[in-house]
Amino acid sequence: MDIAIIGASGYAGGDLIRLLLTHKEADIVCATSRKLAGTPVTKDHIHLKNLIDLEYSNPDIEKIDADFAFLAVPHTAAMQYAGKLKECGIKTVDFSADYRLPREIYEKTYGVKHSDYFKAPYGIPELHRKDVKNADFVANPGCFPTGATLAAAPVAKLAHTIIYDSKSGVSGAGDSISETTHFPNVAENILPYKITAHRHLPEMRQEAAFLESKANVYFTPHLLPAIRGIITTAHILFNEPMELEMIQKLYQDFYKNEHFVRLQPAKLGGVRGSNFCDINFELENDGTRLVAVSAIDNLVKGAAGQAVQNMNIMCGFDEAEGLRMPGMFP
Amino acid sequence: MDIAIIGASGYAGGDLIRLLLTHKEADIVCATSRKLAGTPVTKDHIHLKNLIDLEYSNPDIEKIDADFAFLAVPHTAAMQYAGKLKECGIKTVDFSADYRLPREIYEKTYGVKHSDYFKAPYGIPELHRKDVKNADFVANPGCFPTGATLAAAPVAKLAHTIIYDSKSGVSGAGDSISETTHFPNVAENILPYKITAHRHLPEMRQEAAFLESKANVYFTPHLLPAIRGIITTAHILFNEPMELEMIQKLYQDFYKNEHFVRLQPAKLGGVRGSNFCDINFELENDGTRLVAVSAIDNLVKGAAGQAVQNMNIMCGFDEAEGLRMPGMFP
Amino acid sequence: MDIAIIGASGYAGGDLIRLLLTHKEADIVCATSRKLAGTPVTKDHIHLKNLIDLEYSNPDIEKIDADFAFLAVPHTAAMQYAGKLKECGIKTVDFSADYRLPREIYEKTYGVKHSDYFKAPYGIPELHRKDVKNADFVANPGCFPTGATLAAAPVAKLAHTIIYDSKSGVSGAGDSISETTHFPNVAENILPYKITAHRHLPEMRQEAAFLESKANVYFTPHLLPAIRGIITTAHILFNEPMELEMIQKLYQDFYKNEHFVRLQPAKLGGVRGSNFCDINFELENDGTRLVAVSAIDNLVKGAAGQAVQNMNIMCGFDEAEGLRMPGMFP
Amino acid sequence: MDIAIIGASGYAGGDLIRLLLTHKEADIVCATSRKLAGTPVTKDHIHLKNLIDLEYSNPDIEKIDADFAFLAVPHTAAMQYAGKLKECGIKTVDFSADYRLPREIYEKTYGVKHSDYFKAPYGIPELHRKDVKNADFVANPGCFPTGATLAAAPVAKLAHTIIYDSKSGVSGAGDSISETTHFPNVAENILPYKITAHRHLPEMRQEAAFLESKANVYFTPHLLPAIRGIITTAHILFNEPMELEMIQKLYQDFYKNEHFVRLQPAKLGGVRGSNFCDINFELENDGTRLVAVSAIDNLVKGAAGQAVQNMNIMCGFDEAEGLRMPGMFP
Repeated sequence: MDIAIIGASGYAGGDLIRLLLTHKEADIVCATSRKLAGTPVTKDHIHLKNLIDLEYSNPDIEKIDADFAFLAVPHTAAMQYAGKLKECGIKTVDFSADYRLPREIYEKTYGVKHSDYFKAPYGIPELHRKDVKNADFVANPGCFPTGATLAAAPVAKLAHTIIYDSKSGVSGAGDSISETTHFPNVAENILPYKITAHRHLPEMRQEAAFLESKANVYFTPHLLPAIRGIITTAHILFNEPMELEMIQKLYQDFYKNEHFVRLQPAKLGGVRGSNFCDINFELENDGTRLVAVSAIDNLVKGAAGQAVQNMNIMCGFDEAEGLRMPGMFP
Repeated sequence: MDIAIIGASGYAGGDLIRLLLTHKEADIVCATSRKLAGTPVTKDHIHLKNLIDLEYSNPDIEKIDADFAFLAVPHTAAMQYAGKLKECGIKTVDFSADYRLPREIYEKTYGVKHSDYFKAPYGIPELHRKDVKNADFVANPGCFPTGATLAAAPVAKLAHTIIYDSKSGVSGAGDSISETTHFPNVAENILPYKITAHRHLPEMRQEAAFLESKANVYFTPHLLPAIRGIITTAHILFNEPMELEMIQKLYQDFYKNEHFVRLQPAKLGGVRGSNFCDINFELENDGTRLVAVSAIDNLVKGAAGQAVQNMNIMCGFDEAEGLRMPGMFP
Repeated sequence: MDIAIIGASGYAGGDLIRLLLTHKEADIVCATSRKLAGTPVTKDHIHLKNLIDLEYSNPDIEKIDADFAFLAVPHTAAMQYAGKLKECGIKTVDFSADYRLPREIYEKTYGVKHSDYFKAPYGIPELHRKDVKNADFVANPGCFPTGATLAAAPVAKLAHTIIYDSKSGVSGAGDSISETTHFPNVAENILPYKITAHRHLPEMRQEAAFLESKANVYFTPHLLPAIRGIITTAHILFNEPMELEMIQKLYQDFYKNEHFVRLQPAKLGGVRGSNFCDINFELENDGTRLVAVSAIDNLVKGAAGQAVQNMNIMCGFDEAEGLRMPGMFP
Repeated sequence: MDIAIIGASGYAGGDLIRLLLTHKEADIVCATSRKLAGTPVTKDHIHLKNLIDLEYSNPDIEKIDADFAFLAVPHTAAMQYAGKLKECGIKTVDFSADYRLPREIYEKTYGVKHSDYFKAPYGIPELHRKDVKNADFVANPGCFPTGATLAAAPVAKLAHTIIYDSKSGVSGAGDSISETTHFPNVAENILPYKITAHRHLPEMRQEAAFLESKANVYFTPHLLPAIRGIITTAHILFNEPMELEMIQKLYQDFYKNEHFVRLQPAKLGGVRGSNFCDINFELENDGTRLVAVSAIDNLVKGAAGQAVQNMNIMCGFDEAEGLRMPGMFP
């Protein structure tokens, strides 16, 4: 299957290529970049040297000849391309936020008008596999909502309040330099940012609602002095005291058929570079609070890996194809 | 004033000496260590070389000739010495947990019998300055309860729930080696531990009660890949929606006379090596949740610095004496 | 092909399984561990959960039923097993130092008697491919000598002095805890250790001699605050001033057919998790010193990956089989 | 004594204020910054809040009313101010490179014309104390040359080759953001840069010559994933084999009266935040190579601390005044 990657030069693009190189059905035929058009993909993705022989290009979107596309450009840019890819009959997974939310919520959250809105499944396969299966266009979820939602999903509807306290590696901020990502500002610290109003919050609330939860959902992300990975500590407050056994059963049942969700200690070393989401939890002595912790690699289950998982589902491939490499520990 | 440090060889001991060397009134005459008795203090505290000329000793507690003592030994060891120091008329600040809690709560939390219980002020000066002033023996608070309590204190009584999600540098675990502190297990991760039942929780609840709060208080600590410092993200849920202006006024009033609490962005770089606690906060749009973030150096405001601050108050010195060195940024 | 891993529970063992899981010809049938016999391999290798269904065992070496073995036990332990594996006709790659050096040098360097010495090829395929091809037993090189030797090989015989100044991630010290690997002792520092007399030095000298170099070879390793990877800065002093063009040609010719050596900026992000060795160099203005820098992943090209590469050569497989996963950047 | 700091907003400026706040004789009356004029010094130096009450200003240099100035602006900017400060009779320590080298070497190294050249002592007090004592204007040395020169000084004249392999924390690159200092590019790596031709090399060669060494001096710096500190591994090759005892005596004699140079294990934790330079060394078995390792804090002994030390000497104060705070370990 011929694959095009629109916007292949960032961290997510590089990780997507890394994964697709091990995918039996995937053949990357086009990798676009405005800035780097004409230079080898390995110019900035030095880890791929000797493994891929392709140059960045910058074609008109209509001229892309591919069976499947990954749209890895920023929000508002994605909406320029999405419709055309649909028209061309190219199945697509979109990494941006442009199709993750209802129109009004999107426009309010991102402070822009949507120029080409349509509905698309929200690609957390563990929750929306059936919709993804039948779709030509899937909105790949945000990294934070993926880890957060999976942590709380089995018990979300029992809660009156859910607070996601997330800690993300710096690659989540992309490869663009900033004061925030200057090494001396990151190391030996952990920085809360967008403390009450991060743009990923509406996705979390949408998924909580999908899970029939009426909980108040809150979110505070932190910048962790690490390169990759997100640990989400979900503080889940119950309407009435819960029993540990019941909680355990809820988690086991919810994830019993899921290859990529593992109920084991959530450590970034367990998931680094892989598409797994590891979850463990502990119930407060009096049963009033559950702390569920999830670990994902923000660039894999939080971006490129989940995108490949969605592609596999959309195309009828084995869901784990291209995602068989274990995480890297240590 | 002649100072004895009982248990001077650990991280807190080393930091205590570091601070006392700049204290005009303090003269360290005795530094004890069982293991290192007879070797220079600079043998393990290499940062102090050329600055202190003293050997570790291991005297009978009754033979210590000093005006003031810092008791920096583990819990259950401290109770062996505390009474004797009192009898000898040596004013003391105790770093351990042995005198921080009511007897029953202590015994339940630490799973031991207390062999020599008495009441002592809980040495967060910003809350208990008057009691500290009149005391001969002060219980120095835990590092987590210090940062957590200061973050929430001004609004604690308005809350129905307070969740302290804390992130601590590894020096908080002391200088003893363990699986948990093995570099490849710490780096590129952030590890939640004692997720619902850390021993510092009862101190937090005690202080919340002191502040007339009826909130349910929860606590989850994390091991941060950093050497020093604690960031506490306090999620404070209110009974009814609050206004930002009122919250701001509460914080400003509460801390207006406090030299060591600063209302500014809470970053570990701002407090590293110093006795300050920096606090900032943000109110949820709908007024239902306040996120207050505090930054302290766990070895200073969380241990040695607060101990010196308590000593200064107990002895009538300027409260900032020996604590004038700014933090180290970057 | 049925594979046995003798000593599968450490970092190198875990990484070896990670790689073999993607190897088309390899089927891991036995993973031994004295301590963990009877527990699943994923008990300590949590990154492998859902990917391998095998328990650690602790069989007599003679009873191992496999076509190929990786001997991943410490030096002096390996010599207990090596002869038996040979007798059983099981081709073997040995991770230890027991067969890397001539007997006398081994015994002097490691301060032990060798109880079962025989000659084995030194498995840097880029230098000894032919010997490896024909061997039943290969000594897998040390991590430092691999990166160092590859950095200097093309010009080694032109030098009068070669100083390898290496910086290794902490996983090189294994998963055993120690003062040296306690997080606060590693972070915010870089520690030179075994400054003039590291046990890997004789391997470096042996390979320099193999390359017909008469240079004095020196080595100083450092412990880097990072998990994985070795950067070696090779300071190469020439007998007479050199021209850059000639140097470039020497490197290009030496490595032109080598898939796993890439002449590009040596960064750990380029090789992390992969079997590549990236090399760049710069010549002093006056031509008297070449600084060649190599980057490898100490657990892959420095251990498990090179072992798989050797196995592939010994068994006639494609040399890159099981080693196709790109490095992980960022 | 009234102090002016010209260029007070960077890392070195902030650290200089940190130190001067503990200096008995120093009163900071002026801190200039073009960008931040009119805002409090604590706006960017958040660690100084509650400790200094001063606003950045941007006065004409002639209008500065002070007894002593620290010139902490970049090279080529310093030469605009230096002459005027001299004319005004304000004693000055200059942090820049503008007066560290002979004119021609400066102009060649920095690729600029010097518009106002004059000679100034090179302020490593351990080598040039007498010249500093009598000077009105001192050139504060580069951070790398300070640590490197002190490591090799006692034996420099016995060597035929000295290779300084230095590893610097990222604060050495200043507070300006760049690709190089983007967290994911720094962490889990160690980057050699300006591998053979760093601008600090001529200072090292100048000081080696001052020490009557005829050695070829080479230098390769690396960017270390740490905030503060420089470890320099000096590889010193001798003309003939040396004896350890003699080497030890040379170091002990050379530094016996130096408060700020300590012969003990060189670890960044020992010197962090302080003006000390710690040095240890090991002699190759055959006596042909000495590896001397030095540790300094690049912002203190490598910049602000050494500047204060020079001021103290120029003004007849105790050389350690304002520099009495121990390093911060851990």
